[in-house]
Amino acid sequence: MTDVLARVVRVARGQEPADVVVRGGRVVDVLTQQVRAADVAIVGDRIAAVGAGLAGREVVEAAGRYVAPGFVDAHVHIESSLVAPGRFADAVLPHGTTTIVSDPHEIANVLGVAGVEWMLAASAGLDLSVLMMAPACVPASPLETSGARLEAADLLALAAAHPRVLGLAEMMNYPGVLAGDPVELAKLQAFADAGMLVDGHAPGLSGADVQAYLAAGVVSDHECLTADEAREKAAHGMTVFLREATNARNLLDVLPAVTPANARRFALCTDDRVPGELLDDGSIDALVRMAIGAGLDPLTAITMASLNAAEHYRLRDRGAVAPGRRADLVLFEDLQDLRPSLVLAGGRVVARDGERVGGGTAAPDGLPPTMNVAWRDDLRLARDGDRVRAIGLVEDQLITTSRIAELRGSALCDVAGPDPDADLLRLSVVERHHATGNVGAGFVAGFGLRAGALASSVAHDSHNIVVAAADDGDALVAARAAAELGGGLVVAAGGEVRAAVPLPLAGLMADRPPRDVAADLARAEGVARELGCGVGAPFMALSFLALPVIPSLKLTDRGLVDVDAFALTDVFV
Amino acid sequence: MTDVLARVVRVARGQEPADVVVRGGRVVDVLTQQVRAADVAIVGDRIAAVGAGLAGREVVEAAGRYVAPGFVDAHVHIESSLVAPGRFADAVLPHGTTTIVSDPHEIANVLGVAGVEWMLAASAGLDLSVLMMAPACVPASPLETSGARLEAADLLALAAAHPRVLGLAEMMNYPGVLAGDPVELAKLQAFADAGMLVDGHAPGLSGADVQAYLAAGVVSDHECLTADEAREKAAHGMTVFLREATNARNLLDVLPAVTPANARRFALCTDDRVPGELLDDGSIDALVRMAIGAGLDPLTAITMASLNAAEHYRLRDRGAVAPGRRADLVLFEDLQDLRPSLVLAGGRVVARDGERVGGGTAAPDGLPPTMNVAWRDDLRLARDGDRVRAIGLVEDQLITTSRIAELRGSALCDVAGPDPDADLLRLSVVERHHATGNVGAGFVAGFGLRAGALASSVAHDSHNIVVAAADDGDALVAARAAAELGGGLVVAAGGEVRAAVPLPLAGLMADRPPRDVAADLARAEGVARELGCGVGAPFMALSFLALPVIPSLKLTDRGLVDVDAFALTDVFV
Repeated sequence: MTDVLARVVRVARGQEPADVVVRGGRVVDVLTQQVRAADVAIVGDRIAAVGAGLAGREVVEAAGRYVAPGFVDAHVHIESSLVAPGRFADAVLPHGTTTIVSDPHEIANVLGVAGVEWMLAASAGLDLSVLMMAPACVPASPLETSGARLEAADLLALAAAHPRVLGLAEMMNYPGVLAGDPVELAKLQAFADAGMLVDGHAPGLSGADVQAYLAAGVVSDHECLTADEAREKAAHGMTVFLREATNARNLLDVLPAVTPANARRFALCTDDRVPGELLDDGSIDALVRMAIGAGLDPLTAITMASLNAAEHYRLRDRGAVAPGRRADLVLFEDLQDLRPSLVLAGGRVVARDGERVGGGTAAPDGLPPTMNVAWRDDLRLARDGDRVRAIGLVEDQLITTSRIAELRGSALCDVAGPDPDADLLRLSVVERHHATGNVGAGFVAGFGLRAGALASSVAHDSHNIVVAAADDGDALVAARAAAELGGGLVVAAGGEVRAAVPLPLAGLMADRPPRDVAADLARAEGVARELGCGVGAPFMALSFLALPVIPSLKLTDRGLVDVDAFALTDVFV
Repeated sequence: MTDVLARVVRVARGQEPADVVVRGGRVVDVLTQQVRAADVAIVGDRIAAVGAGLAGREVVEAAGRYVAPGFVDAHVHIESSLVAPGRFADAVLPHGTTTIVSDPHEIANVLGVAGVEWMLAASAGLDLSVLMMAPACVPASPLETSGARLEAADLLALAAAHPRVLGLAEMMNYPGVLAGDPVELAKLQAFADAGMLVDGHAPGLSGADVQAYLAAGVVSDHECLTADEAREKAAHGMTVFLREATNARNLLDVLPAVTPANARRFALCTDDRVPGELLDDGSIDALVRMAIGAGLDPLTAITMASLNAAEHYRLRDRGAVAPGRRADLVLFEDLQDLRPSLVLAGGRVVARDGERVGGGTAAPDGLPPTMNVAWRDDLRLARDGDRVRAIGLVEDQLITTSRIAELRGSALCDVAGPDPDADLLRLSVVERHHATGNVGAGFVAGFGLRAGALASSVAHDSHNIVVAAADDGDALVAARAAAELGGGLVVAAGGEVRAAVPLPLAGLMADRPPRDVAADLARAEGVARELGCGVGAPFMALSFLALPVIPSLKLTDRGLVDVDAFALTDVFV
């Protein structure tokens, strides 16, 4: 057991050559906030020494490039990439992200503890260090049917059993915490008693309420919308993660909060990124570039992307290019426009010039099928009036509006169908966990779809099948096709499937190269566009229409939810 | 279990009054590096909110005073105060130290795991938060007889069983680590595998060696002698504790290493302080004053004394005046000359105007007697030559010199006795754990004692009885008296005991008010002075003469140790 340690010591003392030396780089030293010329000597997965003239059996020429610590994504949902953990690693490692703290919230809503355990198994031994927080709010609300429910005891058991589970993930039910909900407080108390961290999620919270949230034991937040909000949260001792997600772009708004006096309280996170964006825009590197581009000192930006996240999560073994820490290194040419050209994780080259070296790790078996639907003959809605509450889509935002729409056409018709001419689609949410036969029915405006239907088994947070349709028949075709794939994204039109992205892992992920999934998704989006859809990321938009904790009007398998009233409401007015 | 949490939330939201409000203070906000006017609302032992106009059932008037987070002593040996943990708390709380990270290294050398367990029991539930690190090097060397031995498995078991044990204490055997000693590496590996911290102890280490020490997993150091050394250690990612101990005064030499860019890597510690110094000079407050007096920004100094130490030890629940953290608060009038006038710990007033409020907690029973000596008839040394190796005392330092001394007087005499006229005292170390009958014999120069003898059962690190005598008869009287007290410090002269400080707890500590023990010690030092002793703290000096890991010449129960050669050597040359 101590053989490696003994070698590390001998190498550090120059008594034998390192396994690998990264030679001739300019080390970005986040500990001293300086850049200095140095070699990095590596033994196994660990840095043995940083200095001049180090010898190694293998030499990686840095050739004057910058050598920064591997980036840490402080909060991310792997499932949003639509690929399994090993494939996610292939997407982010070329971008210099070598550690992620993930919240397997989506799969937990489908499969509960077994889903989290599978994510742990699927992320074990990857080149990417995958740490986790136990998903705090499963299900997100009582107004929907999820696949599973996690209690405080389940969550604590996960953390106790798995060293890679570091604490409790984003406590999204901040209204519950503020109201003193004993179920939520029990979770906070359990993790406090265990001495473990609790991450937060509290968009817009300020004043006495944010202090109450902190006082209850929540120590971070990644939902800041403004610099003032971030300034206040950091001043109260929260670690604030600046977020730039596919569907929530907050970094530039929040960045002015960061000052030399409080910078140690800030880290970076991607939260949710679709595969195409991860591949082409990037992971944490994209946030670092964006911050530097907006004027943040590059050393500060890189420190936020590494040391600060590591210290928040108490990971003393990483976050800096220094002896004793993990040999997670990002090499790049330009400090102002940071593009990783070589990435080492655990001492091994894992990506070069933006391409993954190695990888392709297949996901383990063991996930059960999760599409368990009691189908109806159709997804039509019986007409019960002329005016309906319709969900108004707000592009690039998770919130929706609630509007009243007139149903046109014959009042004699017994079906309340879609009206593409008025951009009024029929929205359905089909329960798919327990074959309850539940189908929520409503309307959505804003997609612009002229024909066909879009279906998705990714539908936050319970991940039932959500379908937006310009045609009731295509709605059923799309939904059934998604189920037959074991889950996925489907476009149907004219009674047949026109495009599909199979996501057979819990109905959320595919075990395929991210590039292939991104291409499939782009193809499906293209077909949707041909059918008239004017939304840039229609499946992303669709997936949030079922999330009944974000205002104003949403649809679950149990019906239409007035989120502001936190209650079910009628479609017909 | 969640009742308190629910109350904290309600108080923070202003829905009910706090238990206590500290009103009208100027909060020293180490999170933002600012001072701002604010009240502090407290529920139970926790801060619920910090802000304006907070209401409480009990009001503590800050009246414009500064309100800083309670100080954290990052590394201290309680035993050096000569009093039990509850009494130690009484000494340091009035000085604003509300958390200590202690290393029960001394009692571990006497009583092993049972001694550490007793320290945990004796420090449970005190107003002072007593955290511990498992003592790494028991015994300190194989060249002495200690009361116990702690292996890697013992240490890990302690840490696993007790949440207040945070990791492995100062790994003093840095030469062993650098040499790849598998016993020491096994300890480091065990704590690395457990994800726990390992503190360091490596005076003067630099270059490749300090990198090797870090690479082996050691993450702090409190032994820096110079600013350059501290700068280097901090740059490699160590947390550097600036130390100002009774017997090792390093703070001012090291302080210039602290800069705005690296300040987060520095904390403060007292290591070893005698009771009189703790009471009159202070605890961490004394270091803060000293640092500010030397020109350090007061906010930086207070941050080092609180947040930085808390973050090093991953104590997210303290280190700042902020919601959710422990209500450990220090109030004082003057930021430049910080004198705590009110101290709260866990939400309660524990000291006012330098006086302890409450306290006086008696130590638990359960410590066995530890003085187990097989006495000889006398402590005389048979003469075997005219020239001896004598230990040369270096006042205020732990190192000694090795010098050759001529034995004067009749060469016909069969006893090599002391020669007070030449300031050459007879030094003995009497084994007291296992009744082995071991007595180490040697000479020491530098005490100036003209008559009598000083004996101490505090004798680092094995804590056998060490006796320095100007008279062979008094040597035995003093040593036997120390044993009869169950341990202690004794001055004997003319065949009788002239002064004594009883230390019956493991021969190291008394369960008495620190002021009384300090007075006894002052009295004993006064008697020693009357007998000609010219050393300021003679018992402190005496206690380090038996520590065979600090150069150059030391004496253990097994004989004279040439520390540079790390081997026993002969008294007679």
